[in-house]
Amino acid sequence: MMLRALRKFFLLNLLAATALGAEATKPKAPTMAEIRAASKPADWRPLDPEQTIYVEFAAGRVVIELVPAFAPRHVANVKVLARERYYDGLAIVRAQDNYVVQWGDPDAEKPGQAPKIQSASRTLPAEFERKLDPKISFTRLPDGDVYAREVGFSLGLPVARDARTGKMWLVHAYGMVGAGRDHAPDSGGGTELYVVIGHSPRHLDRNVTLLGRVVQGMELLSALPRGTGPMGFYEQAEQRVPIKSIRVAAEVPEAERSTLEVMRTDTATFQALVASRRHRREAWFQAPVGRIEVCNVPLPVRAQGQASR
Amino acid sequence: MMLRALRKFFLLNLLAATALGAEATKPKAPTMAEIRAASKPADWRPLDPEQTIYVEFAAGRVVIELVPAFAPRHVANVKVLARERYYDGLAIVRAQDNYVVQWGDPDAEKPGQAPKIQSASRTLPAEFERKLDPKISFTRLPDGDVYAREVGFSLGLPVARDARTGKMWLVHAYGMVGAGRDHAPDSGGGTELYVVIGHSPRHLDRNVTLLGRVVQGMELLSALPRGTGPMGFYEQAEQRVPIKSIRVAAEVPEAERSTLEVMRTDTATFQALVASRRHRREAWFQAPVGRIEVCNVPLPVRAQGQASR
Repeated sequence: MMLRALRKFFLLNLLAATALGAEATKPKAPTMAEIRAASKPADWRPLDPEQTIYVEFAAGRVVIELVPAFAPRHVANVKVLARERYYDGLAIVRAQDNYVVQWGDPDAEKPGQAPKIQSASRTLPAEFERKLDPKISFTRLPDGDVYAREVGFSLGLPVARDARTGKMWLVHAYGMVGAGRDHAPDSGGGTELYVVIGHSPRHLDRNVTLLGRVVQGMELLSALPRGTGPMGFYEQAEQRVPIKSIRVAAEVPEAERSTLEVMRTDTATFQALVASRRHRREAWFQAPVGRIEVCNVPLPVRAQGQASR
Repeated sequence: MMLRALRKFFLLNLLAATALGAEATKPKAPTMAEIRAASKPADWRPLDPEQTIYVEFAAGRVVIELVPAFAPRHVANVKVLARERYYDGLAIVRAQDNYVVQWGDPDAEKPGQAPKIQSASRTLPAEFERKLDPKISFTRLPDGDVYAREVGFSLGLPVARDARTGKMWLVHAYGMVGAGRDHAPDSGGGTELYVVIGHSPRHLDRNVTLLGRVVQGMELLSALPRGTGPMGFYEQAEQRVPIKSIRVAAEVPEAERSTLEVMRTDTATFQALVASRRHRREAWFQAPVGRIEVCNVPLPVRAQGQASR
């Protein structure tokens, strides 16, 4: 008897939308579901197994797409760390409500602890932003942004740009993955990674290196019990969530891979999706929205070869 | 041995900040912790027990401040529903990642189910926005907004205003509480309530009635397992999270109340807090932020009489 509850609040009414009078004044942008259904194979790209990591927990797998175009050294280092099994047996040590989940080595400073790092780097120069390359396709959003002069999407990710400084950078949207650091800007490197689980903390943009995005399994991180210590650190060792392993997808036998596709953001289909999210056509909406903020644009993911999910 | 991990990423360094060279060029706004510590009793106001509800779960209590100034009929109805015990024994039926948690009566449409509502209303006219009243103090933010002409804080809550339409309205920030509705704008009323648990879905502003804010216990909602059905509904009845009761705080014996204070937003202290969050002075920050979005401004809460928490 969930029907009424299901219908309440935010129903994507694909059948009856045009029958309602209120629709007559709304732009006729199709819904997101219709855009997905009508998309062509070329609107999607498969994840590159060499630029994808799997974080394995007892509860399941989190799939992260790495972004070498924005953080080449950090991405390379995370992959070396994964390949030399640095992360295996570490744990989520922090879950701060409306902010981040973070994992790392809780024993990193324990006296006598053998250094686990082999050929990887413990720290790296910051990669907070990169040179604005006009050859990298950029789908700009038209409605402005509180934190940056320009925002939009490059390479499937939320990006800000500033032509005055000649820089572009990834923004701290929900699900973005970054490299924790200490006070010094070059004190990160990927040994500790965090994931945004709340309202986008955009004040972190250009203050810390972002290197990827969770494309599947967010609920394994966002629904973790919050830590009760300062900044959401778990106070008891047994509260930490063990990481079984982190693997570069290319290392994993093909049959065990998560074969996902993400929607390209340099296509007419993605432009249509943005338009449909700016002008909500679903029957539920009363007020014209007509605007969108970069962190409210969905970035669709589907199983490879599936028409929709 | 959490020291190093604790220091990594976003340390509020209250002791050493001024010793670092990078600080010399930063505005000397105090940190949020310093502002809280220096605040006076008049910078805070206690929750009004008549405008506060407690949602009781086995895992603890969620405290919600109601906002009659923006949704008078919905607030009054929620209190009638609470007083006639409508909510007791209902459940959280939906937890959609990066969006909302929602509770209501899963059996509302079960044939033969006796109507539980007594003197309350099942539905009410929409209260999506209200008349802009210049007598209601408004602390405006200076950095603009993607969705509204003006944003800031009134009565301790995030608010948008539009002088052209002569309206003001609550915005969908993290922790805001609204009344689920069906397609018709007047199909809500408070029998089903939702709470924002992800990036602020600002496209819902003026599309649904907001009536309050969670001031304590967010983690009891935000860390719930996500539903696997459409829109995050739980597919199995046993996955739902039972609500033991919802009570108006004034009904609860004084000794059992959560005596909380919220920081006023019409004070110099709050202005200082906004300034300190726009210009981050903590040693960890490298890039000048210099801007803030309405949903990134913290709204401090503390136990009554406590200097800080």
